[in-house]
Amino acid sequence: MAKDSNPLSKSFIVDFEPIGRRIESDASDDLLTAAQNAGIQLISLCGGAGSCDSCRIRLVSGKLTPPTKEEKEIFNPQELKQGYRLACQAIPLSDVKIDVPPSSLTTPQRLQIEGQEISVEPDPVVVPVNVNLKPPTFDDLRADVSRIKQALETLGITSPMIGFPVLEGLSGQLRVQGWISRLALRGNEVVAVLPTDNHLHGLAVDIGTTKLAAYLVDLSSGKTLAKTGEMNPQISYGEDVVSRIAYTNANEDGRKVLQDKVVSAINSMVDDLCDEVQISREQIVDAVVVGNTAMHHLFAGLPVRQLGEAPFVPEISDGLDISSQSIGLALSAGAYVHLPPIIAGYVGPDQVAMLLATEAVERKRTVIALDIGTNTEISLITGDRVLCCSCASGPAFEGAHIHDGMRAAPGAIERLQIQPGEVRVYTVEGQPAVGICGSGILDAISQMLNEGLIDFRGMLQEDHPLIQSVDGKPVFLVVPASDSGNSRDVIITRKDVNEIQLAKGAIRAGIEVLLKEAKLSHADIEEIIVGGAFGTYLDIRSAIGIGMFPDLPHDRFRQVGNAAGMGAKQMLISSERRKVAEDIARKVEYLELTTHPDFMDEFMKAMNF
Amino acid sequence: MAKDSNPLSKSFIVDFEPIGRRIESDASDDLLTAAQNAGIQLISLCGGAGSCDSCRIRLVSGKLTPPTKEEKEIFNPQELKQGYRLACQAIPLSDVKIDVPPSSLTTPQRLQIEGQEISVEPDPVVVPVNVNLKPPTFDDLRADVSRIKQALETLGITSPMIGFPVLEGLSGQLRVQGWISRLALRGNEVVAVLPTDNHLHGLAVDIGTTKLAAYLVDLSSGKTLAKTGEMNPQISYGEDVVSRIAYTNANEDGRKVLQDKVVSAINSMVDDLCDEVQISREQIVDAVVVGNTAMHHLFAGLPVRQLGEAPFVPEISDGLDISSQSIGLALSAGAYVHLPPIIAGYVGPDQVAMLLATEAVERKRTVIALDIGTNTEISLITGDRVLCCSCASGPAFEGAHIHDGMRAAPGAIERLQIQPGEVRVYTVEGQPAVGICGSGILDAISQMLNEGLIDFRGMLQEDHPLIQSVDGKPVFLVVPASDSGNSRDVIITRKDVNEIQLAKGAIRAGIEVLLKEAKLSHADIEEIIVGGAFGTYLDIRSAIGIGMFPDLPHDRFRQVGNAAGMGAKQMLISSERRKVAEDIARKVEYLELTTHPDFMDEFMKAMNF
Repeated sequence: MAKDSNPLSKSFIVDFEPIGRRIESDASDDLLTAAQNAGIQLISLCGGAGSCDSCRIRLVSGKLTPPTKEEKEIFNPQELKQGYRLACQAIPLSDVKIDVPPSSLTTPQRLQIEGQEISVEPDPVVVPVNVNLKPPTFDDLRADVSRIKQALETLGITSPMIGFPVLEGLSGQLRVQGWISRLALRGNEVVAVLPTDNHLHGLAVDIGTTKLAAYLVDLSSGKTLAKTGEMNPQISYGEDVVSRIAYTNANEDGRKVLQDKVVSAINSMVDDLCDEVQISREQIVDAVVVGNTAMHHLFAGLPVRQLGEAPFVPEISDGLDISSQSIGLALSAGAYVHLPPIIAGYVGPDQVAMLLATEAVERKRTVIALDIGTNTEISLITGDRVLCCSCASGPAFEGAHIHDGMRAAPGAIERLQIQPGEVRVYTVEGQPAVGICGSGILDAISQMLNEGLIDFRGMLQEDHPLIQSVDGKPVFLVVPASDSGNSRDVIITRKDVNEIQLAKGAIRAGIEVLLKEAKLSHADIEEIIVGGAFGTYLDIRSAIGIGMFPDLPHDRFRQVGNAAGMGAKQMLISSERRKVAEDIARKVEYLELTTHPDFMDEFMKAMNF
Repeated sequence: MAKDSNPLSKSFIVDFEPIGRRIESDASDDLLTAAQNAGIQLISLCGGAGSCDSCRIRLVSGKLTPPTKEEKEIFNPQELKQGYRLACQAIPLSDVKIDVPPSSLTTPQRLQIEGQEISVEPDPVVVPVNVNLKPPTFDDLRADVSRIKQALETLGITSPMIGFPVLEGLSGQLRVQGWISRLALRGNEVVAVLPTDNHLHGLAVDIGTTKLAAYLVDLSSGKTLAKTGEMNPQISYGEDVVSRIAYTNANEDGRKVLQDKVVSAINSMVDDLCDEVQISREQIVDAVVVGNTAMHHLFAGLPVRQLGEAPFVPEISDGLDISSQSIGLALSAGAYVHLPPIIAGYVGPDQVAMLLATEAVERKRTVIALDIGTNTEISLITGDRVLCCSCASGPAFEGAHIHDGMRAAPGAIERLQIQPGEVRVYTVEGQPAVGICGSGILDAISQMLNEGLIDFRGMLQEDHPLIQSVDGKPVFLVVPASDSGNSRDVIITRKDVNEIQLAKGAIRAGIEVLLKEAKLSHADIEEIIVGGAFGTYLDIRSAIGIGMFPDLPHDRFRQVGNAAGMGAKQMLISSERRKVAEDIARKVEYLELTTHPDFMDEFMKAMNF
């Protein structure tokens, strides 16, 4: 049924397999755009520039435009012959059938939503007040709002007011509820009007560049009633912060698109949470959202261009309370979303939340707290000082820029041991190995170093029996295609090792610069707190082995899971904790590494093993 | 090209003549819906219930569904034979050609936007402040917002803040403007960031049930730079407040539809005003909008159901300041819209604005101030008291419920004199008479009374030579079809006289009840102020002649034009006047006539001539 014989044809049918999505695509759209339009979450690391190979697909049948210069650089002639292409470069010339390898899909993936909770006394910002109002009569013609205000004044609330979005439904609600209602009160402002048997709930959200985590909390007990995780759908528009900023710079409505994507995803998570706990959205009367600075700005609809240009300043650093309705977040109409303060262009409210959740600042010990990602935020707490920096550790630990890298989706190697005569791998969900994710590559490099596959500079030792030659270049063959049953070997190249050297070097240099700035040595560090998804799954021995972390006793390390999400939850259930977060943010001394005199030296030193 | 032969046809072509609109309409839509979808402003007084004949059209060719019971009651067999139908009842069964008589169209119509201005010293709520900021560097990484706040603090502004909608464009604006900007400051809140050569402007709007008037004002000089008028497009959903409330009750998204209609119309007026004065919308940094309570609620997106049910209370009566962006009004992103306070369910901010504009309260004289419409608001000011009521005067003065009534569109009789042997009529734009509008019917009844065509009870005197018999009933033949060249005579029936009796009776009874309440007599009235469109065009002698107004010397009457619009403008350019308006609203004692013990007696008395 191919339509290529018809020159007037304005669209083609694209079959994406094995996911089984069949869509009609504009004749002018490339396959990445077609997939995005269809909601298929193809990875697009470079944002569609053709400079990475994350959106790799294979043509099964039909015709595409010829391979571009970019594709000819990425694929060897044999791969091109097999039909491998980049979705962002290829445009259908007929109806086509496309094979999407699992490594090019952003879902499914393991989602990190658990975190260590500390006990916090509930003292929520939004509290319930019950009122019993006199209905209007011809002898008492007060407006509905005046009626509520006067009732609240009687209860001792000064200058009460009703949030504007609440007015949209107020008159109807009062009448349906028979003038007996539970008001959700945020200071002197009514943010919801509910039946008196409704509990008040709150939503805590951690917007990661890759993942979203959401927690539904009972505001009076402080208990988390349900939690859920999702991929951040912005991934289809660029895998990291820099590509997403580039996307918004290149597309006039790009900011709106990215905001809508993340808000819709959160709305759908809220639906799931409400279904699970059997409440309505109207019962969610407060929210706290954390994320890095770019995620914060994109969620709130703020400009991000200046975050991508030196000197990388945020538009706003103060804590923000915005109307949930104004950004399309479907909670109770009058609910606000609290966004905690920002420390710098690359140190966002998620770092504030992590410092809050781990009580790292309050305990007055000497602590290093890290959140490892494409940008790794590192804080050093000592005495009354909090020093903080961000280093560009790159996406290697998220599986990107690694020859067979992928995120922690089924089939990703997450643990690896080199044993005599055998490379033992452990994959996510025990699936046949299709690639290697962050914790796996960390193990691999550490083991390669131990077993002499690489030297201290990271050079692959061609005389080592586990090193083989592929296309004339030495590689570590981790899993041959014959073992996994997949079409490709899983290998580690010199370039992969180098990516990890750059990443771990940046992180270690950040730690060293902070210590130097505080005039401390490794021995002074009482605790190293490691947060975030990769930080949870990584093997501390491997991280020490490759020199990413200082060589300290194992019991000084604490892996805390999604501490940012836990911090968001604390700010949700406690006004006091919200204030502490403000204090923490104000206290932080931010060090800009890119212009720091010691950084380059430390980085060069830390690159070697 | 009629498609009625094809039973699968899902839509038909509808040609509306003489306006020349040709549209494709769903096969299930009636002609009123089809016209509304096409933006053709057919009058729909009853909101599509088939109970009035305001959406009268004529089938020229093609097939419609058979006449309904409602249509058979409204049209006589000859009219039905001629193809007369109600657009709200008739559904096309084929492609059709439809003739729309001018009297069924809401446009064009004369728009009342002029009003008497009093001089007010400009003292606007939003003022300009110029700042010269230091651009960010690696040594000064403050966020953009912190930079502005600190500059404003230096200028003595306490706790400055930036309106959330301003953040959407802020970073880009600062950089484009080279960090030298004019901030529009509303108290401590920045509502716009403009180049330093930009003046600040404001928008005053009067939302009438029928008409919209908008004024573009230079905030520093207080001068009106441009003004414009439009029909209120909500008319297509019901001509009066009650039908529009009914529309929102019957349609789930009705409130949203009506809000969008009025906001879009204002946005388009703003476009015209900006074009005329050659400024951008971003330079409009403040707005004041007045209207009756229902118009206020619909504009702000508030519920109106309770306004249509006893005891008719507004949802909110306090003054409101809402984000222009939150309701889709496209001014400067951070601009607020001020909605002055409401007095009662049927006495809105337009009455407050009128009292403000005419200085009726401040001059401490004994004054009656009226705004005549479907509901007529009447205030009595005496000493320090302001008494106010609203009476249901009905739509007769807007030409509705009158056999040949219409609004003041071309061809409407607006003045009428009965002279020996001749009925002399004056029409809008001198067009052949097609109907009679409010001021014309008022003149007509007054002259009919003078000339003995009716008695004091309003009975048509069949023996008078100007009274003729049509279908066995006595009518006053104002303009025979043969004179005007139109297909129908213009006549006045007993029912028309009765409609006017009801209207003028209600108004006069309102005046009398207020006087009684204040223990005053006619002679105590120093001034009667008449506002609004009909109030401007009516002949005071005729109004006194039929007993609508007390018989006072002509020089005690003041016709002030669109005083509500002028009041809005005052509140726009002066914080002081905004406060005075609040004081006035607080001072007003509202009298509910429907339950007032004296009203029915006064009404019965005032019905007679």
